[in-house]
Amino acid sequence: MATPFRFELHATDGQARLSTYHTPHGAIPMPAFAPVGTLANVKTLEPRDLHELGVSILLANTYHLYLRPGHVRVQRLGGLHAFMAWDGPILTDSGGYQVFSLAHRRHLDDDGVTFRSHIDGSVHRFTPEHVMAVQEALGADIAMVLDECPEPLDRAYNERALARTHRWAERCKAAHSRTDQALFGIVQGGIFPDLRLESVAFLAQLDFHGYAVGGLAVGETKEQMYATLDVTCPALPPDRPRYLMGVGTPEDILEAVHRGIDLFDCVLPTRIARNGAALTPTGRIHLRNAAFAEDPRPIQEDCACYTCRTFSRAYLRHLVKAREITGLRLLTIHNVHFMVHLMQEIRAAIAQGRFADFRAGFLERYTIPDQAVRHEQRRRRLQSLSSR
Amino acid sequence: MATPFRFELHATDGQARLSTYHTPHGAIPMPAFAPVGTLANVKTLEPRDLHELGVSILLANTYHLYLRPGHVRVQRLGGLHAFMAWDGPILTDSGGYQVFSLAHRRHLDDDGVTFRSHIDGSVHRFTPEHVMAVQEALGADIAMVLDECPEPLDRAYNERALARTHRWAERCKAAHSRTDQALFGIVQGGIFPDLRLESVAFLAQLDFHGYAVGGLAVGETKEQMYATLDVTCPALPPDRPRYLMGVGTPEDILEAVHRGIDLFDCVLPTRIARNGAALTPTGRIHLRNAAFAEDPRPIQEDCACYTCRTFSRAYLRHLVKAREITGLRLLTIHNVHFMVHLMQEIRAAIAQGRFADFRAGFLERYTIPDQAVRHEQRRRRLQSLSSR
Repeated sequence: MATPFRFELHATDGQARLSTYHTPHGAIPMPAFAPVGTLANVKTLEPRDLHELGVSILLANTYHLYLRPGHVRVQRLGGLHAFMAWDGPILTDSGGYQVFSLAHRRHLDDDGVTFRSHIDGSVHRFTPEHVMAVQEALGADIAMVLDECPEPLDRAYNERALARTHRWAERCKAAHSRTDQALFGIVQGGIFPDLRLESVAFLAQLDFHGYAVGGLAVGETKEQMYATLDVTCPALPPDRPRYLMGVGTPEDILEAVHRGIDLFDCVLPTRIARNGAALTPTGRIHLRNAAFAEDPRPIQEDCACYTCRTFSRAYLRHLVKAREITGLRLLTIHNVHFMVHLMQEIRAAIAQGRFADFRAGFLERYTIPDQAVRHEQRRRRLQSLSSR
Repeated sequence: MATPFRFELHATDGQARLSTYHTPHGAIPMPAFAPVGTLANVKTLEPRDLHELGVSILLANTYHLYLRPGHVRVQRLGGLHAFMAWDGPILTDSGGYQVFSLAHRRHLDDDGVTFRSHIDGSVHRFTPEHVMAVQEALGADIAMVLDECPEPLDRAYNERALARTHRWAERCKAAHSRTDQALFGIVQGGIFPDLRLESVAFLAQLDFHGYAVGGLAVGETKEQMYATLDVTCPALPPDRPRYLMGVGTPEDILEAVHRGIDLFDCVLPTRIARNGAALTPTGRIHLRNAAFAEDPRPIQEDCACYTCRTFSRAYLRHLVKAREITGLRLLTIHNVHFMVHLMQEIRAAIAQGRFADFRAGFLERYTIPDQAVRHEQRRRRLQSLSSR
């Protein structure tokens, strides 16, 4: 192959896969977690932090970068890698999800979507061809097709949207021209097994570099998400990377790896850090909690991250309570380390054929936040974003 | 001497002094600049950053730490050094200046000052003895006496205040008991030469470890400040460190070193960074400026800091415009580096007997922001703080 992209499958353990995905900016050991750098920056962190933390791939958001500073400007400054001084692999999403969740006054038609910027209300239009041009200008290692992300439980909506998503996938594939950029297709179909299988079959014949499972973790229950992966993953081409978009929590990642997913991205570790929460093997802890006011222990006793090697919960609580930026950064460092370390443990477990035990052991210790609480938090966040 | 504090004067060049001040947490090469870590944290930075930047001493604010998280809590957590994980020298101010500039509804009497917290309105009282106890609990290497900081141009007010400041200095000296903590006296007297000389004479006989010049850079002109240093510095004991509190800008530091000052602290490099401004050898630049939108150059071409080694003005402008925390941090790194590097250059120039040339050359290239603009900025900031 002339392509610089190569997927190596090293081992399987049940459905779980140990693999490496080779890109122009380096190899990604998978299963992998991509922290989110929405505006060409993982909030509070620098490239040297990401390297120190062992991050192997970042996600950047096309919608945000298109609006600010603009993809043409990024291109003139040498592309995303040069612009943000990150020399490792980058993936850009298509911007479609943000158009549906953030932008104002969307109007969707078969050719594309017209929307108003959430920043200044200016009018913009994304078509499959335009989104490919934007992502080629940004120059990430992996680009995504434009898709429509419907309410996962609405059958009729999903049927209509899927036809459009498939036509857009064809047009993206035809429009994409950079050979140093991989293009991944996105499987849609809500929670409906027949639609998911139809989507897999359609996209597989388009021969994408990799396949994402989209439209999950957007309102359905965990059980519905896992069931959808149970149907979708076995049908995906085994020789291509599989990416579950926007996921996730530690528990969701374990369940998805168990079902054959290789790649994840999520704002969770960075966003909850900025809310004062830290991930630990027994669940999340909230540093604002008065119980930590004089707690001399680190966030996590056996953690090797800079934050845990250096600072007490008492000091971190003080910083968070006093709204010191450094507190947000130190929690972000810990949370990204936690996710990267989790993926390392997952890979070691698959390599040694003990993934089922690892998953069971982790989930036994880890307290999952109540789903109702999480849905309410998500609803409030979307509300506050859309009212900006 | 049983004291762990020792002032070594290595060389003079005119009035400028090259020296080292030894403390229990290390030696401070002087002239030195102390970044401000108000709440036991230099905003956006970590101890490892401060070490990498070559910072030799920090200032922390007694008023803020007394209110939050509380000096007793800091003491129970091992003192400021352990609490914030900084193993270098620390200086705490007395809290007096913040009581006068931040706190609400102050009532001053000869015994002390009663005030309301700017955070929650709760009532507190500082006396010389109490402020000594608070600073001993915090456990910095250098503590400061409680003083009154009057309007520098008001003769009658300065006369009254000076008498009280001197009685408080005596009481602080009598109350201070930690032998691993130095205590510095503070010279007051506004812009009035006779009062300044009276203050020096009174404090010198109390035999403090070092002497600060207080009550400057608080509203008088630069010319009045320099003239006050011209009178005050030659009268100070030559074998003790001299500290100009709350100063300052690069130009003020050069003028003050020229007049014999050894130590400085100021929020300037960290505060202006969080407003999107960077220090350069030709003056401040404001990264929000549209002129930088596609500027591929670093903030400062010959700068060795991480920010300048890694990022373009265009990227930094993007981060600042998008309100990304990382942008504030990267500018803080550059600005602190700029100040530390300036002090290194000052020390080298004194050592080589060319400080006058260095000062003249620096000031010729460096554009000083208009005084009227700066006074207006300062007025607005104090107004916004006091109306919180």
